[in-house]
Amino acid sequence: VGLDPRIGQIPEHIKSESIRVFGDSLTAVGMSLIEFSKQIIDTVHDVVPAVKPQIAFYEQYGSKGIEAFEKTVAFAKSKGLMVIGDTKRNDIGSTARAYASGHLGEVELIDGTLTSSYDLDLVTVNPYLGSDGIIPFLEACKKYGKGIFILDKTSNPSSGELQDRKVDSKKPVFELVAEQINELGMNLVGYRGYSSVGAVVGATYPAQAMTLRSLMPNTMFLVPGYGAQGGSAEDIIPCFNKDGYGAVVNSSRGIIFAYEKEPYRNNYGPDKFHRASRQAACDMRDDVLKVLRKHDRLPDGW
Amino acid sequence: VGLDPRIGQIPEHIKSESIRVFGDSLTAVGMSLIEFSKQIIDTVHDVVPAVKPQIAFYEQYGSKGIEAFEKTVAFAKSKGLMVIGDTKRNDIGSTARAYASGHLGEVELIDGTLTSSYDLDLVTVNPYLGSDGIIPFLEACKKYGKGIFILDKTSNPSSGELQDRKVDSKKPVFELVAEQINELGMNLVGYRGYSSVGAVVGATYPAQAMTLRSLMPNTMFLVPGYGAQGGSAEDIIPCFNKDGYGAVVNSSRGIIFAYEKEPYRNNYGPDKFHRASRQAACDMRDDVLKVLRKHDRLPDGW
Repeated sequence: VGLDPRIGQIPEHIKSESIRVFGDSLTAVGMSLIEFSKQIIDTVHDVVPAVKPQIAFYEQYGSKGIEAFEKTVAFAKSKGLMVIGDTKRNDIGSTARAYASGHLGEVELIDGTLTSSYDLDLVTVNPYLGSDGIIPFLEACKKYGKGIFILDKTSNPSSGELQDRKVDSKKPVFELVAEQINELGMNLVGYRGYSSVGAVVGATYPAQAMTLRSLMPNTMFLVPGYGAQGGSAEDIIPCFNKDGYGAVVNSSRGIIFAYEKEPYRNNYGPDKFHRASRQAACDMRDDVLKVLRKHDRLPDGW
Repeated sequence: VGLDPRIGQIPEHIKSESIRVFGDSLTAVGMSLIEFSKQIIDTVHDVVPAVKPQIAFYEQYGSKGIEAFEKTVAFAKSKGLMVIGDTKRNDIGSTARAYASGHLGEVELIDGTLTSSYDLDLVTVNPYLGSDGIIPFLEACKKYGKGIFILDKTSNPSSGELQDRKVDSKKPVFELVAEQINELGMNLVGYRGYSSVGAVVGATYPAQAMTLRSLMPNTMFLVPGYGAQGGSAEDIIPCFNKDGYGAVVNSSRGIIFAYEKEPYRNNYGPDKFHRASRQAACDMRDDVLKVLRKHDRLPDGW
């Protein structure tokens, strides 16, 4: 479940309570983001394996927003969920190290004591700067047992402007990036056959996903674009391996704001938004499982 | 001047004062980052036109770090400096809008009141997702009179892995991105002939800079890589237009931690680190002006 809390869509009862406590301020917005995120996490934590907070929706409110992000991450972890920070960070090596330490590892206090900061389980990483912007994240993966998803073929309409362009007269950029992801992850493959270095592959591009699946057999795919962005369960099937593993499918708006949309709106008012989200998460899970079964890719035990 | 405050290199007297007030904690680290950044800004504000805080070095410390970033930005603006947020953000359209609103524009409080958040003058933006991840930033540029620098040819050693690859059997990725930057910026060219849409072009790649300068005549270049990363004043000359305008040259470590290095270490101890930084900033300015003069590109009035 992707956590993209937009203040305009958060139910009024949460917002009015925040205003009552803090007045209308960035602090009140932060309180609303935390309260909304917590209730979503609470209602879906036994339905899904992971949440993906999108840091932009917190970060836009400055330090109060980041505080809400930190509290959201900590609450999700306390509920036993994996937390994928959708940060899309990247920079030159020495700066990428600061991001990797902060988001996945530990940072130094003044006297050198190490402390964890965001303590995310996984983050998304942008590949435009090449490997020296990614290696610090790999080091954090290895040292702290964490993971990353490198952007490969993203779900947005204009992703092809760069990612689909053919390099060296042969393959598109996203295949070049896939080869790099495969290579960077090779030494971080775990006992279940998947690497700590994953790839972001949008549900909106199933043909490209099929190619990418065969180019990166040991790579976990983070698959955004299901639901609100237009990707269906059929579209995401190519992201899975034959055994039904290999993909984490994300839906954000379709789940967290389900209470605003049919068929949920009829059954759940804004005061029951969390129950609408739970139902939408169950429906998504069932939808994916049904299509996996149809394609004979249901994992053992399901 | 690039603000990359690394806690290990901040002078002891600043850090011990922070520990005295807050104990050794993320709050104390935040206080040290603010104090160090403010003293650097205070000492260089009449030597340079802009500072470029690298958000990673603040963000790694969570909300306390972001609070230090916000205070650093506000202080730099109060001193009349332009502030370039080195954020390298990007995402799909709807998420990019959140970044653009937060970093350059305004965000909505609960009742819809608009308030500014970071209120940076310019930010760096990553192009990997294509134009729909950039357009929200352009809208903020237009509405709020702000600017962006899109990563094109970055200064790091591995930048060529993707950026130098030839697309469509013709030109490298960085030229494709340059064409896009030119096109995106065309409607935002101001009365001095420069667009609000700039480009990041590393000082470490002078040959590529020459090509890029001719491909993007109306584009302001943000040029990192001078100094600590190995770029010299000769290397950055191709980033300027013939009239001596068109480039903002950045040095981070070479200026802010000048007190640790010769020739400054001999003359300024850690207690005078800010004076070492001022001297290093003056030396850099003079170095660039000298080489501009040598190449007959000194702007009018210098």
